[in-house]
Amino acid sequence: MPYDAHVRTWTCIDGTWRPGELDGGPRWYDLSGADRDGLLELASRYGLHPLAIEDCLSPYLHTPKIDDFGSYLFIVVLAMKPGTVEPILEELDVFLGPGFLITYRDDPATAPEIDGVVRALEQGLAVRPGTDGLFYEVLDRVVDSFLPRVSAMSEQLDALADLVLEGDRDGGLSQRVLEMRRTAGSVRRTMAPLLGVVLRFGRGELSLVQPSNVIYFRDVYDHLLRVDLALEELRDDAEVALNTYLSTLNNKMNEVMKVLAVVGALALPATVITGIFGTNFDEIPGLHSNYGFAVMVTAMVAMAASMAYFFHRRGWF
Amino acid sequence: MPYDAHVRTWTCIDGTWRPGELDGGPRWYDLSGADRDGLLELASRYGLHPLAIEDCLSPYLHTPKIDDFGSYLFIVVLAMKPGTVEPILEELDVFLGPGFLITYRDDPATAPEIDGVVRALEQGLAVRPGTDGLFYEVLDRVVDSFLPRVSAMSEQLDALADLVLEGDRDGGLSQRVLEMRRTAGSVRRTMAPLLGVVLRFGRGELSLVQPSNVIYFRDVYDHLLRVDLALEELRDDAEVALNTYLSTLNNKMNEVMKVLAVVGALALPATVITGIFGTNFDEIPGLHSNYGFAVMVTAMVAMAASMAYFFHRRGWF
Amino acid sequence: MPYDAHVRTWTCIDGTWRPGELDGGPRWYDLSGADRDGLLELASRYGLHPLAIEDCLSPYLHTPKIDDFGSYLFIVVLAMKPGTVEPILEELDVFLGPGFLITYRDDPATAPEIDGVVRALEQGLAVRPGTDGLFYEVLDRVVDSFLPRVSAMSEQLDALADLVLEGDRDGGLSQRVLEMRRTAGSVRRTMAPLLGVVLRFGRGELSLVQPSNVIYFRDVYDHLLRVDLALEELRDDAEVALNTYLSTLNNKMNEVMKVLAVVGALALPATVITGIFGTNFDEIPGLHSNYGFAVMVTAMVAMAASMAYFFHRRGWF
Amino acid sequence: MPYDAHVRTWTCIDGTWRPGELDGGPRWYDLSGADRDGLLELASRYGLHPLAIEDCLSPYLHTPKIDDFGSYLFIVVLAMKPGTVEPILEELDVFLGPGFLITYRDDPATAPEIDGVVRALEQGLAVRPGTDGLFYEVLDRVVDSFLPRVSAMSEQLDALADLVLEGDRDGGLSQRVLEMRRTAGSVRRTMAPLLGVVLRFGRGELSLVQPSNVIYFRDVYDHLLRVDLALEELRDDAEVALNTYLSTLNNKMNEVMKVLAVVGALALPATVITGIFGTNFDEIPGLHSNYGFAVMVTAMVAMAASMAYFFHRRGWF
Amino acid sequence: MPYDAHVRTWTCIDGTWRPGELDGGPRWYDLSGADRDGLLELASRYGLHPLAIEDCLSPYLHTPKIDDFGSYLFIVVLAMKPGTVEPILEELDVFLGPGFLITYRDDPATAPEIDGVVRALEQGLAVRPGTDGLFYEVLDRVVDSFLPRVSAMSEQLDALADLVLEGDRDGGLSQRVLEMRRTAGSVRRTMAPLLGVVLRFGRGELSLVQPSNVIYFRDVYDHLLRVDLALEELRDDAEVALNTYLSTLNNKMNEVMKVLAVVGALALPATVITGIFGTNFDEIPGLHSNYGFAVMVTAMVAMAASMAYFFHRRGWF
Ligand SMILES: [Mg+2]
Ligand SMILES: [Mg+2]
Ligand SMILES: [Mg+2]
Ligand SMILES: [Mg+2]
Ligand SMILES: [Mg+2]
Ligand SMILES: [Mg+2]
Ligand SMILES: [Mg+2]
Ligand SMILES: [Mg+2]
Ligand SMILES: [Mg+2]
Ligand SMILES: [Mg+2]
Ligand SMILES: [Mg+2]
Ligand SMILES: [Mg+2]
Ligand SMILES: [Mg+2]
Ligand SMILES: [Mg+2]
Ligand SMILES: [Mg+2]
Ligand SMILES: [Mg+2]
Ligand SMILES: [Mg+2]
Ligand SMILES: [Mg+2]
Ligand SMILES: [Mg+2]
Ligand SMILES: [Mg+2]
Ligand SMILES: [Mg+2]
Ligand SMILES: [Mg+2]
Ligand SMILES: [Mg+2]
Ligand SMILES: [Mg+2]
Ligand SMILES: [Mg+2]
Ligand SMILES: [Mg+2]
Ligand SMILES: [Mg+2]
Ligand SMILES: [Mg+2]
Ligand SMILES: [Mg+2]
Ligand SMILES: [Mg+2]
Ligand SMILES: [Mg+2]
Repeated sequence: MPYDAHVRTWTCIDGTWRPGELDGGPRWYDLSGADRDGLLELASRYGLHPLAIEDCLSPYLHTPKIDDFGSYLFIVVLAMKPGTVEPILEELDVFLGPGFLITYRDDPATAPEIDGVVRALEQGLAVRPGTDGLFYEVLDRVVDSFLPRVSAMSEQLDALADLVLEGDRDGGLSQRVLEMRRTAGSVRRTMAPLLGVVLRFGRGELSLVQPSNVIYFRDVYDHLLRVDLALEELRDDAEVALNTYLSTLNNKMNEVMKVLAVVGALALPATVITGIFGTNFDEIPGLHSNYGFAVMVTAMVAMAASMAYFFHRRGWF
Repeated sequence: MPYDAHVRTWTCIDGTWRPGELDGGPRWYDLSGADRDGLLELASRYGLHPLAIEDCLSPYLHTPKIDDFGSYLFIVVLAMKPGTVEPILEELDVFLGPGFLITYRDDPATAPEIDGVVRALEQGLAVRPGTDGLFYEVLDRVVDSFLPRVSAMSEQLDALADLVLEGDRDGGLSQRVLEMRRTAGSVRRTMAPLLGVVLRFGRGELSLVQPSNVIYFRDVYDHLLRVDLALEELRDDAEVALNTYLSTLNNKMNEVMKVLAVVGALALPATVITGIFGTNFDEIPGLHSNYGFAVMVTAMVAMAASMAYFFHRRGWF
Repeated sequence: MPYDAHVRTWTCIDGTWRPGELDGGPRWYDLSGADRDGLLELASRYGLHPLAIEDCLSPYLHTPKIDDFGSYLFIVVLAMKPGTVEPILEELDVFLGPGFLITYRDDPATAPEIDGVVRALEQGLAVRPGTDGLFYEVLDRVVDSFLPRVSAMSEQLDALADLVLEGDRDGGLSQRVLEMRRTAGSVRRTMAPLLGVVLRFGRGELSLVQPSNVIYFRDVYDHLLRVDLALEELRDDAEVALNTYLSTLNNKMNEVMKVLAVVGALALPATVITGIFGTNFDEIPGLHSNYGFAVMVTAMVAMAASMAYFFHRRGWF
Repeated sequence: MPYDAHVRTWTCIDGTWRPGELDGGPRWYDLSGADRDGLLELASRYGLHPLAIEDCLSPYLHTPKIDDFGSYLFIVVLAMKPGTVEPILEELDVFLGPGFLITYRDDPATAPEIDGVVRALEQGLAVRPGTDGLFYEVLDRVVDSFLPRVSAMSEQLDALADLVLEGDRDGGLSQRVLEMRRTAGSVRRTMAPLLGVVLRFGRGELSLVQPSNVIYFRDVYDHLLRVDLALEELRDDAEVALNTYLSTLNNKMNEVMKVLAVVGALALPATVITGIFGTNFDEIPGLHSNYGFAVMVTAMVAMAASMAYFFHRRGWF
Repeated sequence: MPYDAHVRTWTCIDGTWRPGELDGGPRWYDLSGADRDGLLELASRYGLHPLAIEDCLSPYLHTPKIDDFGSYLFIVVLAMKPGTVEPILEELDVFLGPGFLITYRDDPATAPEIDGVVRALEQGLAVRPGTDGLFYEVLDRVVDSFLPRVSAMSEQLDALADLVLEGDRDGGLSQRVLEMRRTAGSVRRTMAPLLGVVLRFGRGELSLVQPSNVIYFRDVYDHLLRVDLALEELRDDAEVALNTYLSTLNNKMNEVMKVLAVVGALALPATVITGIFGTNFDEIPGLHSNYGFAVMVTAMVAMAASMAYFFHRRGWF
């Protein structure tokens, strides 16, 4: 057994996939970064190009692509890392030949949807025929896992937007909305070339894909389009939430300014008037009158009231 | 009678559509989510592809598309849900073959324009020939229903814009305008692929469409273009309304600041002066003069007036 | 005489257009919404497609297009409504066949440039040969009328921009600039498909257009391009005017804040100091000194001056 | 001599350009708006199309283009008006046939680079062969004059940006930066079709251009691309300068607000306290105490200090 | 030895590159601006086009391009200047023929990755066959050096973003983020045509590139795409940092305004009340009461408290 214990192998005999490396049919090898030697062994057995192997082993995230090496395709696909709040895209590398399918991930936790395919094979469920059909089963599940993640993000944003409307005072709110908008844009941008990759499968232009399987890849493409649209909606919703937040802030500041104006209007003339009658001049009109004080207070109230009325009429409060 | 009571069936005999499933002519089946079994029965009778049936039964909104299965087309179209204030797009699925037309909606309330086609058939009105002609009648009515909805939104926006100009104080105004802008953008984006679908019908590139019907689909395309333009206008109008709102707010804040400046200008020097003559020093010039008080008040008024003049000259009020 | 009195008819005999419906040459019919019956009569005589007639009679503004019906073209062109301040685009419908040219407008006041063509024919001026040549004469004049309208808008905007620079206090200024930007964008968007229509005429791809006339349509295209560029310039100029307006407002607010700061700086410490010496304590240092008052006033002035100096050094005024 | 004295004529004999209209070789005519009659004479001699002549004589700026009249090309090129601070684009019209090159400008001051070509011919310097080669010499010099103008604009912007950073108080600063951004955008937009024109020359798709000259036009294209990039950089730099300016303003306003808050904090409680001890109640605690005044002043200072400390801890100054 | 001492020359004998100009195999000449004469000597020996030599010698940065001169290619590539904080792009000019490879830089410090290739040759490491293979080795290393530079910029931005979140008061922060955004955009724009150049090598459309080397250029293209994506992410991150900064500023200003409102609320009524009881009227109610002073102070505190409560309920602090 030349492979690491982690390498899962399946062989298709008479249209049914059976566990293990058997004779007489196409095979599926499922590897991860823990099976480096297995990958190198497969590379030499099937003559896989060193640049493709380099792409697998490199820790950087690659842009999705199809490299056509004549007798097999090297396909870079994206999968979402499970268990994170914000979607993180990871690389899923695929070698697809008429006689073999190799799926490779750096981290075995990436693309747990592959385990779903394994379980389906174990239960003897029917899958699309051929190695291209098996690749479809993997791709379909990986892509199906995207929309729920985007929906979850969308619901988070809705919750934040509700906090915004309730006038939440937490200063970090707008920042979290900004982050979500950025994430949505970044995921969309990173995923864009995947649309092109899947479209090539769904247009029947790859000779390795059987005609009856083409429409199935086209179905995956439809799902990807929906994810793309949902991400664009998310960016738009974040935009609205941010603008609402800023306009709420602006409104509040406005209200504060108005109250300051009114309080100032009520107080300042009063201050001046009491100041006048508080000076120590020998002769100040009215100081010795019986009604002097009452007139002064009345005048103060009247001035405040008329200023308040003036401000109100201008629509300030 | 193998179908659910809700399935409406029509047969075209000698160029006239008659109710019921008759022999010798193409048929129209109109179903909804309530007729699931009917759809499955039709799928097996006409050999409809399971992926297309899956698209029908899936509750998610699909992107408009044409799937060409050789002997028939599967077309995803959009219709507007009736009775909502903001347009909500719903899916209308269509199978179009030379011998059959199947229209399917999840919710029977979607696309009530189909009822209009039914009534036209009942009244014996002429429709375009063939199943493609009948599909045109459905599509034409569905698309004709879009523009009035967009116009209604546009009128709502105009009403909001008028409130904005009248200086309405309701803080939710800008938010509603924001929502409308978002909705217009979202509807436009969702509808964009429908333009491509209808254009393919209107360019005569589908062999299932008779040459004399092509120009009719081109007419539907013109209407869709108009809807698209109207939605873009709406976004622009919302942009203007928002900017007007913000600049109105800004102007008001400005006005408040100016009045505060003036009130401050009138009051502060007066406060200082009265403060000076209110101190209890033994010797303060002018306290015992007969004209002291009058001079002080005059000085206060003069200072306030000259500051007011200075502010006015700088254009502050 | 089967036509409404308003229908103008011309016939081309030996290369010269003569008034009336004569025998032996191609004809021009110029109609408007007031000649509905004439249009229907022409439709039946020349076999015009009902969808094209529907487009003529529909009150909605159509997107410019060319519908090729084989033996004739149906062309939707735009004209500017005369006499309005802001350009309003209206529909001019044209049927162009080798033997006839039909020009149709809903409102006879639309496209008064057609009257110019009529006058030119009356004066026996030479026009380009053929019905396509006559269509060129109409189109050339209609398009030539666009640039002056856009230039007028541009001059209006310049006048508004000057008011902005002079610091005009009218709150509606920014709104009018916003409206102009919106109009320029909307006209440009609506006119965009007309560029495509004229380009097809100017590329010689329509068999109905004689080779020697092609370059003339290309000339019309050049003019349309210039209009398009002028509208984009207008949007840019409006953008500058708006930004200038906002920055002017901002600068003014800033100035007001600075003066408030200075006035506050001068007044507040003085208020505190006079307050101290205005208290009624039995023992306050300096109250009974001969120089007490002078020292206090000097201290107040000194504090105000040093604060003013501090503010000045920070660049606040 | 049928031409205006201003028309410059050259003839190419045995590969060398000689002044005057000589026999036996291709000719170059260089005209301007002052030589209207010369242009008309040339038009009739070489059969130039009236629409092209109309384009020359029209005072409006044309969009760059190539009109292919079979035996000759009519090319509209742009040149920069010399001596202005901001680049102003003007039209240079060119007729290019195998036997003649005609260069026409409305204003003889436009495109002084042509004088450079004349001087080169006078000095007997080698130029690229053929009329297309001579056109290259003109075009190369015209386009070479663009980059220095854009660089000068860029340096002006840098100077403005430095003033912005130094906190210059001139309110017109942001406006000048806005104008430069607008100019850069407008020049770029106007020049865009010139790229297409030169690209057609540099791709060898015009039969009038000799194969060995094609790469020379491609070199001109490279220079135009560089100008285009420089203009886009300029717009970006202007964007940064504007944002820096706005954020500088914002920061200053912030600082002013903070100082106002501090001054207010120091003054207001003191005002209240002195007010309390300035009232004329018969019984005010402490008024007759020996330490009353000292306690009050101490309390005032303590309150101001603690408020200042509180503000400082919140990071306000 | 006709070359400057700085020119490095290699010859490929039997598939191995050896130092020096030997007979019988393709050669590599590595030159810089210090070897001007060497470049001219090579130009005359290999018949290099004068325009290409002019491009090499010109000090301006050229847009990346491929000029196909039939027997050899002239390629303009970009390299990053080593040792600067912000990436600066410099020109690397390459002549690629079946029998020679010439690499030219103005400044010998540009593209130090070439030294890496020299070291690899010295150590006898295998390189891709042919002059195109050697060009790949150079291009691969040059492009591999880009991503670390962009990552370093990204980390700098993260550090700045952290300072922003910590509320750093340095006014230059937003400016530095603005500069980084501008740099990212400018580098991306300048590098964009390089993607096109490398794509042409990676699509196998250049006959000078051996089929087995094509996939290697495609690998370089993948890396460039990743750099492009990283630069776009950087712009987005800068956008978020800027918005966070502005919203932080805004929040602080808001807080200041609220505290001012509260301090004003507490102080102004108190000022008015003490002013009233500080006037010198003969008859002021309560002045001679035993509880007058206590009532006044209580009223002042009560008013301040109720205003504070009112402000708090409106969510102002
Ligand atoms: Mg990897
Ligand atoms: Mg990788
Ligand atoms: Mg799926
Ligand atoms: Mg599935
Ligand atoms: Mg939502
Ligand atoms: Mg599906
Ligand atoms: Mg459904
Ligand atoms: Mg569905
Ligand atoms: Mg319709
Ligand atoms: Mg209809
Ligand atoms: Mg409207
Ligand atoms: Mg129509
Ligand atoms: Mg009409
Ligand atoms: Mg109409
Ligand atoms: Mg014209
Ligand atoms: Mg004309
Ligand atoms: Mg202007
Ligand atoms: Mg013209
Ligand atoms: Mg001219
Ligand atoms: Mg002109
Ligand atoms: Mg040049
Ligand atoms: Mg040159
Ligand atoms: Mg610069
Ligand atoms: Mg060059
Ligand atoms: Mg923007
Ligand atoms: Mg150089
Ligand atoms: Mg250079
Ligand atoms: Mg590499
Ligand atoms: Mg490598
Ligand atoms: Mg980051
Ligand atoms: Mg790679």
